Amino acid sequence: MALIECIPNISEGRDAALVDRFAHAVARTPGVYLLDRSSDISHHRSVLTFAGTADAVAVAVLALFEQAVATIDLRQHHGVHPRIGAIDVVPFVPLEDASMDDCIALARRVGTEVATRWHVPVYLYEEAAMQPHRRPLEQIRKGQFEGLAEKMRKDEWQPDFGPATPHPSAGASAIGARMPLIAYNINLATDRLDVARKIAAAVRHSSGGLRFVKAMGVPLADRGIVQVSMNLTDYRRTPIARVFELVKREAARYGVTILDSELIGLIPSDALVHTAQYYLQLDAFSSSHVLESRLRHAMSLNAPASPDNVKQPL
Amino acid sequence: MALIECIPNISEGRDAALVDRFAHAVARTPGVYLLDRSSDISHHRSVLTFAGTADAVAVAVLALFEQAVATIDLRQHHGVHPRIGAIDVVPFVPLEDASMDDCIALARRVGTEVATRWHVPVYLYEEAAMQPHRRPLEQIRKGQFEGLAEKMRKDEWQPDFGPATPHPSAGASAIGARMPLIAYNINLATDRLDVARKIAAAVRHSSGGLRFVKAMGVPLADRGIVQVSMNLTDYRRTPIARVFELVKREAARYGVTILDSELIGLIPSDALVHTAQYYLQLDAFSSSHVLESRLRHAMSLNAPASPDNVKQPL
Repeated sequence: MALIECIPNISEGRDAALVDRFAHAVARTPGVYLLDRSSDISHHRSVLTFAGTADAVAVAVLALFEQAVATIDLRQHHGVHPRIGAIDVVPFVPLEDASMDDCIALARRVGTEVATRWHVPVYLYEEAAMQPHRRPLEQIRKGQFEGLAEKMRKDEWQPDFGPATPHPSAGASAIGARMPLIAYNINLATDRLDVARKIAAAVRHSSGGLRFVKAMGVPLADRGIVQVSMNLTDYRRTPIARVFELVKREAARYGVTILDSELIGLIPSDALVHTAQYYLQLDAFSSSHVLESRLRHAMSLNAPASPDNVKQPL
Repeated sequence: MALIECIPNISEGRDAALVDRFAHAVARTPGVYLLDRSSDISHHRSVLTFAGTADAVAVAVLALFEQAVATIDLRQHHGVHPRIGAIDVVPFVPLEDASMDDCIALARRVGTEVATRWHVPVYLYEEAAMQPHRRPLEQIRKGQFEGLAEKMRKDEWQPDFGPATPHPSAGASAIGARMPLIAYNINLATDRLDVARKIAAAVRHSSGGLRFVKAMGVPLADRGIVQVSMNLTDYRRTPIARVFELVKREAARYGVTILDSELIGLIPSDALVHTAQYYLQLDAFSSSHVLESRLRHAMSLNAPASPDNVKQPL
């Protein structure tokens, strides 16, 4: 079963009853599994995480738009997180049996529906982008809701779908496809912020480091230590283990050791399988040897596995 | 959903059509997923791997006995692997949401049925054993089918269920509960068999090494190297990473490095998650942060997750 993960960011983080309604709209969609939810009061923003088949996820996203367009008014919305719309961002992420192409197709399909039904302009971003300058989300979001009407007068900011002016209350939405993003922090056994910053500069792509790493050095005042705080934007091509080893090596350069590290949010299991393969030198191992993967695959055939589609090693 | 894995060892490894029938008997059981099968001609033995709820797995095992007792005659069976019965061994192994107690209860329930329906004597082994001398499978199997009638005259070898004499053609069966067993081999960049043997002796429990490791040194003639071949009998208490590190350290003692390593068969994902935690120093990480685990959990609620049983971090 090709499952797709969806992590919509909604511009409402203070009215718990309203966020409940959004979560219910997702959870009651047949075939959709709500996995996580979080709200941030200062950001005035909520994030839902759910998964299902492409068709089921599409229905859930549209149910969410139905609710959010009716209830959120960006003209009254003030939070510290940048945003352009009531449903600000909708990324689709391929899980085990789904491809990036599945997610790109889904982004376009949902984008068309959103523009048609609610007259909300839609920008396709990252892997789903149809123009290179719209790949980075930060470019689309630059100027925010307040600057949107002005921005949309320019040719290069005509939306991919929908009207050429913002929806009065719901603004616009960025809908896209991307790899799972892993938030990964490494804590150092030191309080020297300069060391964390130098290590961050060494490992991040923008200043000469690894291709799919964004990094910054930050103090953790309550623990009296510093942290290299990172986003890994493609863990298949820049694996966690290599990032860890490079940070460890750079820290040693300053006589500093690693205290511990942390993965934030939900992590795809193959990122952890790859880590085990790396350290144990499991050169011939693949995810198909993971018992639970095999079981999920057998279950996804819907009927119990027939003996004929099980390989016979001998 | 509490899933139980079952890996019956059947004394038939040469008649492919017959093994097909056994595999079909399992695969057509509702709620049971056949994950793997393998047959070995010189052992004259086949192993099926399947999983399901306790009830479904019980039905599949009894369907297998129905077929095997009717078709396998131990009096005509000659292979290099020791065996006492047509269905020689039936281990039940707890997967993610199941407990060892679930597996012990299942072993006793299935054992009673087998003894009642087909008059096959049953010995409960490992975690399901009711007497300490029957915990090790090798003790139950000592003397094999040919010595069974004689052995069963002794008080200490009365079966746990069923008649006090072997079934004429089907012998007896060992039915038990155990942790997943991980077959793990580390290949050394040397052809010195003495080094592999010394390392095996250093790491295995029987000669002073780690508690849940069995090990031997073997040559891999075709690759011109040697291997430390191991069984890890409880990977939660003696984790793979610690075994790897100890072997690496012992190898360095002889100036030898590790070429690669290999995990044989199906590996529980938490063994790999633990490995990643170990090397990345992920002190606060747990399996509940694995996206697929969260998804499986949500799916196992059968209906899509309600927003109320998803935790709300903020």
